[in-house]
Amino acid sequence: MNTNAANENRTPVTVLGLGPMGQALAGAFLKAGHPTTVWNRTAGKADALVAQGAALAGTVVDAVAASPLVIVCVLDYNAANAILAPAADALKGRTLVNLTADSPERAREMAAWAAARGIDYLDGAIMTPTPTIGQPTAVLLYSGPEAVYEANQPALASLGGTPAYLGTDPGRAAAYDVALLDIYWTAMSGYMHALALARAEHIAAKDLAAYARGIVGIMPDIMTELAQQVDDGRYPGDKSNILSAAASMEHIIHVAQARGIDAGVLSAAHTVARRAIDAGQGTDGFSLLAELFGKPSA
Amino acid sequence: MNTNAANENRTPVTVLGLGPMGQALAGAFLKAGHPTTVWNRTAGKADALVAQGAALAGTVVDAVAASPLVIVCVLDYNAANAILAPAADALKGRTLVNLTADSPERAREMAAWAAARGIDYLDGAIMTPTPTIGQPTAVLLYSGPEAVYEANQPALASLGGTPAYLGTDPGRAAAYDVALLDIYWTAMSGYMHALALARAEHIAAKDLAAYARGIVGIMPDIMTELAQQVDDGRYPGDKSNILSAAASMEHIIHVAQARGIDAGVLSAAHTVARRAIDAGQGTDGFSLLAELFGKPSA
Ligand SMILES: NC(=O)c1ccc[n+]([C@@H]2O[C@H](COP(=O)([O-])OP(=O)(O)OC[C@H]3O[C@@H](n4cnc5c(N)ncnc54)[C@H](OP(=O)(O)O)[C@@H]3O)[C@@H](O)[C@H]2O)c1
Ligand SMILES: NC(=O)c1ccc[n+]([C@@H]2O[C@H](COP(=O)([O-])OP(=O)(O)OC[C@H]3O[C@@H](n4cnc5c(N)ncnc54)[C@H](OP(=O)(O)O)[C@@H]3O)[C@@H](O)[C@H]2O)c1
Repeated sequence: MNTNAANENRTPVTVLGLGPMGQALAGAFLKAGHPTTVWNRTAGKADALVAQGAALAGTVVDAVAASPLVIVCVLDYNAANAILAPAADALKGRTLVNLTADSPERAREMAAWAAARGIDYLDGAIMTPTPTIGQPTAVLLYSGPEAVYEANQPALASLGGTPAYLGTDPGRAAAYDVALLDIYWTAMSGYMHALALARAEHIAAKDLAAYARGIVGIMPDIMTELAQQVDDGRYPGDKSNILSAAASMEHIIHVAQARGIDAGVLSAAHTVARRAIDAGQGTDGFSLLAELFGKPSA
Repeated sequence: MNTNAANENRTPVTVLGLGPMGQALAGAFLKAGHPTTVWNRTAGKADALVAQGAALAGTVVDAVAASPLVIVCVLDYNAANAILAPAADALKGRTLVNLTADSPERAREMAAWAAARGIDYLDGAIMTPTPTIGQPTAVLLYSGPEAVYEANQPALASLGGTPAYLGTDPGRAAAYDVALLDIYWTAMSGYMHALALARAEHIAAKDLAAYARGIVGIMPDIMTELAQQVDDGRYPGDKSNILSAAASMEHIIHVAQARGIDAGVLSAAHTVARRAIDAGQGTDGFSLLAELFGKPSA
């Protein structure tokens, strides 16, 4: 265990799970001066952290017993459950912060499991990659009891960024996580598809990327504007409507298909836009789709 | 026609088509001091421009005869062809710049049509909305004969931005246009889907939008990195691979389906990722999808 004097005020922290993210988390706690205990199914992954001053626990129970604040960050909740179940008694009276990504349902289930065992529980989601951890650019979201968040905020601040508390529903951080990853994977799939189109036209990926950066750069302000429309439940089509969006999509789909390029992604979006048009809502704004995705056709 | 002294050095320009974009283009030429002639199928749309000094031509032939540089910007190439066909003789020896959005094929067809009639032809694409026209934020792409571009660049500069010349293939601006719109519409569809997920979790759209801006903000650098991989034809999976992307997508799809939300868009992307995994390429990087979209399964 790291024992230098500056650390005496820092909460001891245990990190369970030393994949790339678990290692980044433990490294950030160590750098901020927290006495840090680590455990991983495959113990060898702790070597670099031990060299930096971490204590390696031989069992999950020993790891939990070492700190009032226990972080778990592994592949999924099945793995987290498997790790935590034998340590339920040891966790009693401590705080468990679960930074493993999963669904809102499973976050709520684990919160109920923890509550029944006298364990203070926060659920979290990490929105940025490992190099950001401990840096101002990190984005971590938390939800669960506010008092638990407040009590642990000083220690969690060692992970960097502006920690965001999203409310008492333990599923809320996971709900944001899923929605934000939805944007990310859909957009990146669109980008890969655009690179396939570019390739068919002998355009180098780097040449398209220069302009793709610009297209992505105009999106944040448009997103804020469309969010307001969705919150208001009013979808003005004066600047750009579903009819013109659908026409643009059809045009892209045809260009792709003429080159033997799979057009399934945009075709699926076009189908939803088409439903609006068939229902006489073609002159509404594109933001109406936020409603329509939630009302699949029979 | 605008006749003040400052305009004597400015190329006279004709704008055919006065939808929102044609009006913005004609307005920018007027503001930059070009003697500007306009024509539109529905003449009434010229009123505001005439009040600013534009000359309204009664026929397309008269409009073309007024200027050495003729811009056409209408709904699609069918409309552009319908407008230009009767004016082919009048266009001879002049420069025609077609800023109507359509496919690379149709841009090449129109270039051939123009070449056969002694008309200098540039094809263009406008990547930014009307308020940017004439401003530094405008993005306009051009392709066609380099000498024609160079000769007209000073006049086209009045439309704002950093005009980009993409090469001699007249279809190239349209190819960029289609690929960039593909990114835009796919990403915006993903955003609408994420807002549907958020709504099912009682998250206000504006609350998600604040973080969505951040997710989109990390994309440009990732896009540049993945473009390099695509150009190199090497898809390293060391930072993040297709297996983990597919797992994340499946997870989002399940969360959506459990809430009765259409998951077609991400399912179509997942199908392509799945093909990579089934072919034993799951540990390759996500950028491999740029190849796979171009090789649809039988
Ligand atoms: N990496 C990132 O950039 C990033 C960004 C944001 C969020 N996240 C999230 O952070 C979490 C961890 O991600 P990661 O990148 O560190 O890698 P990961 O591959 O998702 O997880 C690896 C960790 O899970 C453990 N594990 C897997 N199955 C297990 C089981 N059945 N029993 C016990 N332990 C098991 C591994 O132990 P072994 O070492 O013994 O295999 C290792 O500690 C995930 O939920 C991920 O979505 C990651
Ligand atoms: N608006 C934007 O923000 C934007 C951004 C980038 C690119 N663009 C591109 O710019 C082009 C023009 O767009 P826009 O926004 O100005 O509006 P638009 O609705 O795409 O086009 C309207 C123009 O097309 C004319 N038109 C339509 N059918 C015609 C026909 N059969 N014969 C003759 N004229 C016909 C209309 O004449 P009438 O007035 O007589 O109907 C009007 O001048 C499109 O290719 C669009 O994709 C627009």
